[in-house]
Amino acid sequence: MRVAVGKLNRIEIDSARLWRDLDASARIGPGRAGGLSRLALSDDDKVMRDTFVSWCKEADLRVRVDAFGNIFARRAGLEESSPAILIGSHLDTQIAGGRYDGILGVLAGLEVIRTLNDHAVATRRPIEVVSWTNEEGVRFQPPMLGSGAFAGIYDPDWVHRQLDGGRATFAAELERIGYLGPDHLCPTQYDSYFELHIEQDDVLDAEGLHVGIVTGGFKSFGLELCVAGENAHSGPTPMRRRRNALVGASLLIARLNEIGWSHEPEGRTTCSRLTVEPNRYGIIPHLAELTVDLRHPDAATAAEMCSQFRDFLPLAALKANVEIAVAREWSFGDVAFDAKLINLVRSVASDLGVSHRHLMSAAGHDAYNISKVIPTVMLFTPCRDGVSHNEREHIEPAYTAPGVNVLLNAVLRRATA
Amino acid sequence: MRVAVGKLNRIEIDSARLWRDLDASARIGPGRAGGLSRLALSDDDKVMRDTFVSWCKEADLRVRVDAFGNIFARRAGLEESSPAILIGSHLDTQIAGGRYDGILGVLAGLEVIRTLNDHAVATRRPIEVVSWTNEEGVRFQPPMLGSGAFAGIYDPDWVHRQLDGGRATFAAELERIGYLGPDHLCPTQYDSYFELHIEQDDVLDAEGLHVGIVTGGFKSFGLELCVAGENAHSGPTPMRRRRNALVGASLLIARLNEIGWSHEPEGRTTCSRLTVEPNRYGIIPHLAELTVDLRHPDAATAAEMCSQFRDFLPLAALKANVEIAVAREWSFGDVAFDAKLINLVRSVASDLGVSHRHLMSAAGHDAYNISKVIPTVMLFTPCRDGVSHNEREHIEPAYTAPGVNVLLNAVLRRATA
Repeated sequence: MRVAVGKLNRIEIDSARLWRDLDASARIGPGRAGGLSRLALSDDDKVMRDTFVSWCKEADLRVRVDAFGNIFARRAGLEESSPAILIGSHLDTQIAGGRYDGILGVLAGLEVIRTLNDHAVATRRPIEVVSWTNEEGVRFQPPMLGSGAFAGIYDPDWVHRQLDGGRATFAAELERIGYLGPDHLCPTQYDSYFELHIEQDDVLDAEGLHVGIVTGGFKSFGLELCVAGENAHSGPTPMRRRRNALVGASLLIARLNEIGWSHEPEGRTTCSRLTVEPNRYGIIPHLAELTVDLRHPDAATAAEMCSQFRDFLPLAALKANVEIAVAREWSFGDVAFDAKLINLVRSVASDLGVSHRHLMSAAGHDAYNISKVIPTVMLFTPCRDGVSHNEREHIEPAYTAPGVNVLLNAVLRRATA
Repeated sequence: MRVAVGKLNRIEIDSARLWRDLDASARIGPGRAGGLSRLALSDDDKVMRDTFVSWCKEADLRVRVDAFGNIFARRAGLEESSPAILIGSHLDTQIAGGRYDGILGVLAGLEVIRTLNDHAVATRRPIEVVSWTNEEGVRFQPPMLGSGAFAGIYDPDWVHRQLDGGRATFAAELERIGYLGPDHLCPTQYDSYFELHIEQDDVLDAEGLHVGIVTGGFKSFGLELCVAGENAHSGPTPMRRRRNALVGASLLIARLNEIGWSHEPEGRTTCSRLTVEPNRYGIIPHLAELTVDLRHPDAATAAEMCSQFRDFLPLAALKANVEIAVAREWSFGDVAFDAKLINLVRSVASDLGVSHRHLMSAAGHDAYNISKVIPTVMLFTPCRDGVSHNEREHIEPAYTAPGVNVLLNAVLRRATA
């Protein structure tokens, strides 16, 4: 039985079913404190992928995997040649991550499709749910690698050669877990991309709102720096003869922090990784490698922050008597999502009576990459106290179901328009 | 044949033999850049110990091993009940250490005994050469653990329980390599302790002198600090909501460095170890652990430097919005070596025409611990450019033999007095 679409503009998801899947996911690669530690292309990631694929097949979807391990599950449309609607996010997590960051977006996409199946709704356009590979950038840099490769931002061979901390390549790990796929999916096959994600900030929670309609993203600059000094005994070596790489790194981190504070409240600066060699008692370190990022919603201000930091590199090198090199750099963000899709989501939220506001995203998301090649919009749903990338990340069906219903009905309108 | 001692006050070591042993040692646990990486109680340490014991037995010495893996090799005296003379240092190295730091002192002790054997010199006192366990403090803290245990500074059970980075205990590793010995050696069995060591600074090299007679040691304070914050996403989390442990640690390291510079040229401050958790891209670190030391030849100034640093802890905690705790602390140094032994070494050097000067030691040495329980003196010999705790550490027979000859003749005078 096919039900006419016009009568169904208020269909609702089964949030208990969505929660069962979120709970099942939370048992695959559990962390130590109630969250998840499910790194991209790990054994746990394979188990989660296999589970997701089996759920998709149970929902009668056609599953395809591309050369970057991105998984696409397709619900046929009445016009199969019509560009499809894509809904997705990622199933990998940080090393001590939460249960919902990324995962909610993928499983909400699947729940949207299951709801359409439940109501036997036929849509003109096909609808696909996608799980992108290595969004977090924990094992492989840069982050959002799978969506970036799909969008043609990165050369496929370069993506395949990326190394997990000097060990396995991205391609070898994809092959090892059985997700180096044969399918070639092309952005031109898609009409639009929707990504629902927890907010990772406390604006919605503090204001008691259910949906953030994301208009664009912070501009982010990432730098990997190498500080080279010389090792020597920490006792006899006088200060003037030292070439202490860790002192150089510490000066950089302290300055980076100042730059963040001087652009409060919107500017943010972080050194999230620092490795020190040989990092042993009694030895002045000869090497420090650090990864930093600088973000601001205004692209020009973000660039200014980055240039303030770069201006400090020679000074830190001079003060610590070391050499400082930028080993690698990247940027993302400075995206504006699609105006028509933003309007669509806002009007659906209004029609459903779901409280909402516009927001900018400070974190990077796969949607940034996809927005370069497919009209894109993001929806945020609240997370408690804005805590994310942390095992304490917490949401509840009551926070979340209204947003997923907005997603469902927005997708439905776009798919039938 | 026994030769009368009075006629032999100019006997000389065989420096080619000493160098053959140093070269043999340099093949056991080689580093990547010409030095050594022979950590205490590692498999390589076991091979070196076995080799050293075989050399001692070839020299007709009686070998004993105590409960801390310290190896004592004894040459009998004419009066076996007379307190013995002890000569030694350590055979373990830093992770990227040199070929001579510690090793020279042990093998010079053995060379002294072999030379006495060659000349069939009988001494009133027995003479022992000792190799102390875990001087470097790389795997197990604190450094100089074997000599400290021998000297009764540390409780034996506490020493046995020390962990290598949360893995094996000191006792288990001793047992594993076969050096958890049955012998109980007591400081009261010894008359005096001599330790010859490369200088690890460039004073002798710069002044073209052969021997540094060490009058005492820098006072050193060591602290292990734990900086506790909270992890969160590096993008959405505004600066004011952050509790960034790495920022706290960086402020500490920068301040520590300033304190060192403000006490130039004698004061030295170092953070040699910093570990960061989770240390992953995109996450604000929630934990940083660091090991620092502060040193000055004047004990009161060293204490003042340490207190300047400690005064800064609450300020750094406030600025970074973290908690900072001192997890562990120690001090060593502030030793004055034995005046009679200093005079003895000086007069032997003068008699032999070996150029010399008095020096203070900035590094820690086993002699610091032993000086608490046995009259002690140290001799320094030059090392090129003062480079140490580095695979580039370099000495040559011409730098070194005069100092070993001073050691030989000083020990001989003391042993026959």
